[in-house]
Amino acid sequence: MAAPGKGARTDRPGSTRRQFLLGGAVAGVGAAAAIGLDLALDSPSTAPASAPLNGDETVPFFGAHQAGVDTDAQAHAVLVALDLRDDTDRDGLRRMMGILTDDAARLTQGVAALADSEPELAVSPARLTVTFGFGPGLVDRARRTAPAWLKPLPAFGIDRLRPEFSGGDLLLQIAADDPLTVAHAARMMLKDARGFAAVRWTQRGFRRAHGTVKPGTTMRNLFGQVDGTTNPAPGTEEFARVVWSEDGWMAGGTSAVVRRIHMDLDKWDRLDRSGRDQSVGRYMSNGAPLTSSPDGAAAEFDEPDLDATTAVGFPVIPTFSHLRRARSEDTAEKIFRRAYNYDDSPTGSEVSDSGLIFVSFQADVDRQFTPIQRRLDELDLLNEWTTPVGSAVFAIPPGCAEGGFIGDTLLT
Amino acid sequence: MAAPGKGARTDRPGSTRRQFLLGGAVAGVGAAAAIGLDLALDSPSTAPASAPLNGDETVPFFGAHQAGVDTDAQAHAVLVALDLRDDTDRDGLRRMMGILTDDAARLTQGVAALADSEPELAVSPARLTVTFGFGPGLVDRARRTAPAWLKPLPAFGIDRLRPEFSGGDLLLQIAADDPLTVAHAARMMLKDARGFAAVRWTQRGFRRAHGTVKPGTTMRNLFGQVDGTTNPAPGTEEFARVVWSEDGWMAGGTSAVVRRIHMDLDKWDRLDRSGRDQSVGRYMSNGAPLTSSPDGAAAEFDEPDLDATTAVGFPVIPTFSHLRRARSEDTAEKIFRRAYNYDDSPTGSEVSDSGLIFVSFQADVDRQFTPIQRRLDELDLLNEWTTPVGSAVFAIPPGCAEGGFIGDTLLT
Ligand code: HEM
Ligand code: HEM
Repeated sequence: MAAPGKGARTDRPGSTRRQFLLGGAVAGVGAAAAIGLDLALDSPSTAPASAPLNGDETVPFFGAHQAGVDTDAQAHAVLVALDLRDDTDRDGLRRMMGILTDDAARLTQGVAALADSEPELAVSPARLTVTFGFGPGLVDRARRTAPAWLKPLPAFGIDRLRPEFSGGDLLLQIAADDPLTVAHAARMMLKDARGFAAVRWTQRGFRRAHGTVKPGTTMRNLFGQVDGTTNPAPGTEEFARVVWSEDGWMAGGTSAVVRRIHMDLDKWDRLDRSGRDQSVGRYMSNGAPLTSSPDGAAAEFDEPDLDATTAVGFPVIPTFSHLRRARSEDTAEKIFRRAYNYDDSPTGSEVSDSGLIFVSFQADVDRQFTPIQRRLDELDLLNEWTTPVGSAVFAIPPGCAEGGFIGDTLLT
Repeated sequence: MAAPGKGARTDRPGSTRRQFLLGGAVAGVGAAAAIGLDLALDSPSTAPASAPLNGDETVPFFGAHQAGVDTDAQAHAVLVALDLRDDTDRDGLRRMMGILTDDAARLTQGVAALADSEPELAVSPARLTVTFGFGPGLVDRARRTAPAWLKPLPAFGIDRLRPEFSGGDLLLQIAADDPLTVAHAARMMLKDARGFAAVRWTQRGFRRAHGTVKPGTTMRNLFGQVDGTTNPAPGTEEFARVVWSEDGWMAGGTSAVVRRIHMDLDKWDRLDRSGRDQSVGRYMSNGAPLTSSPDGAAAEFDEPDLDATTAVGFPVIPTFSHLRRARSEDTAEKIFRRAYNYDDSPTGSEVSDSGLIFVSFQADVDRQFTPIQRRLDELDLLNEWTTPVGSAVFAIPPGCAEGGFIGDTLLT
């Protein structure tokens, strides 16, 4: 029984890259190629040129840096941490990363993975990126020296960490503007990882959908706060200095801190508007820094006036506010934040199980991230409503060139 | 300390509707109105007219029918079932539905709910709809006679139902093209429902994001199947006949069957392409019905040829296929399907916890839905890979006019 429109084998981008596949997972490329024509008929790229589809947008996979760090944050992300199987040695790591790189290189370009059993789900990449991170255990298994900062964060007083959201040997951060694309990519990659590693935790997050608000609008979290205003801008020198490492096998890479932070929306609801503004040091309404100016002409990107005082002499931006506590005079203590909201199904009498999948990238965790987190641990009014319940640190190795694979600077 | 840009109270649509609020929840309207100007400054409607934002799109709330049934399915949905508290009587139901109707009427139009503590999250409705359903327990509590079909479905051999995904007194189906909009609306409504009812279960689902594929493209489920081809088209006479009830307090309403159906992706992966095509009776590639024509000129909406046979005399569309088993000669046995994919975090050695939140609307469950489900229970090759794990039936009351509330035909 012939499938309709089937016949010619189409040359599909990516299939020339089979040479760097270090082993396994080649079965099925025939099937994927054979349905090439169907996919073409089916593909949304036949839409009129006047209406380009966001689903067709791609983010380049190969390059000096991995995608998904300086990429405009997509609407949906799933972060999966895996633990290596006991028998996955250095050779196994190489094989695993070869296969997973190939998957990611294809899927991000809207091309079915090798042995993709649902190739029709691969045709709308919607800016899909896959970002790989290595935990301390993986670098150890590779028998190489890890950066000094690649270890669990120090314990903080505010932490209520749960093992099911902490640690891990391998991180996959899979993000796209389409939830079905994310689901399919995650499944394909986990199937291919399965021989080498098992899932430790999964966290799903979201931001505004593409097309909901104007591009470039700073996201809001589930407290309703404008979240992400003071952040190095991708493409700038500051961003490069804050984010990219220059050290050894990590040159061109960075580190990721992933903190799952529960937000108590019920308790937050009992706080009035001015208390909310003060907890951060910014207005809920538009994210502008608090100002004493009675004409209220403050805008989101105005420079906070840390010296301004109220009529009775208190700082306008309170000393306990998140803005003031998170900010440092030391220009070394900068991070790039790229968080996602989570909103899982509440259990029992909870009305919500919500929070932030806090993700920050920085060249050096110890030097840049930890001092900030330490200050926030000591004092930050936001702590009243937020609780870290998961924590993990990963080395994000550099990107790779066509023919290479993610982690090749570590594994070859 | 004044918020920037604050001052004039703006007249916000929806605030005239306070009169029908039967009690409670009026505190906070001042706050919501007071920030009206901030919201306007903040609002995405200031985008250039050349780029209308999907986030600004609204679906009318008031009307003969509730929205969310004949509405083009949005990208994200959360279905929440609640159980009434013991002391919620007929009066309480009236109060509850008055408040929840008011919330829904506002939020769906991009207006903050009364006492909305995160009003900035309400400004991008993104085609938000809220659809209410009544379980048998609610109609009982209203001391009215339920339609004969408002009861749990009969037990089926394929069922492996779990109480945490079954039953419920009140259904909220909250759907929009934006996940933050859905999260905020769900939270607001659950806060207002909390005095009257407690959450029994929550199910989150998705389809393609707005802008991923061309509008009107039939969705794909996580098996990769084109799902939803043979379905009455909203706006047609057939749709009205299949969906809308004409009986008593339900006139203009319908029924919803919500089945959570687990899909075993691992097992499905072991099935080859032709087996997949045959399990449904349609091609995976484009959703066209299987055909014996060697030129393969089949398209998705072609009429299936149920008489066609293969060279060796077997039906081209197998007798055990889902298409053949789900289809009936009896024109009364028609339903309108409006399903969502789910993809939750796998536990243990699972690679995925995925499936379909099957939702169908029909005027009469016993006459239209149950015969189909009974046939599928007896024989349907898809049963090899699918397992119903949740089941619930709700009466979807008619819509209401401005000044009325959802359920007023039952409760007044
Ligand atoms: C649920 C937890 C958190 C929430 C709700 C939250 C929220 C916010 C908000 C609303 C702002 C102001 C707007 C902006 O500049 O983005 C902000 C700024 C900031 N946050 Fe957080 N945050 C959280 C956790 C953290 C953590 C764990 C860190 C790092 C350890 C952090 C570091 C920062 C930094 C560095 C800034 C910029 C401060 C400046 O103005 O220089 N935040 N956060
Ligand atoms: C996970 C479970 C299910 C899956 C994956 C599934 C999938 C499909 C697919 C791929 C089609 C063909 C395309 C189309 O016309 O939409 C279809 C058709 C259909 N399905 Fe299902 N389905 C499921 C459960 C159900 C259930 C529980 C019912 C009702 C009891 C149902 C009733 C129908 C009907 C009435 C049709 C149209 C048949 C026709 O061509 O006349 N399905 N389904």
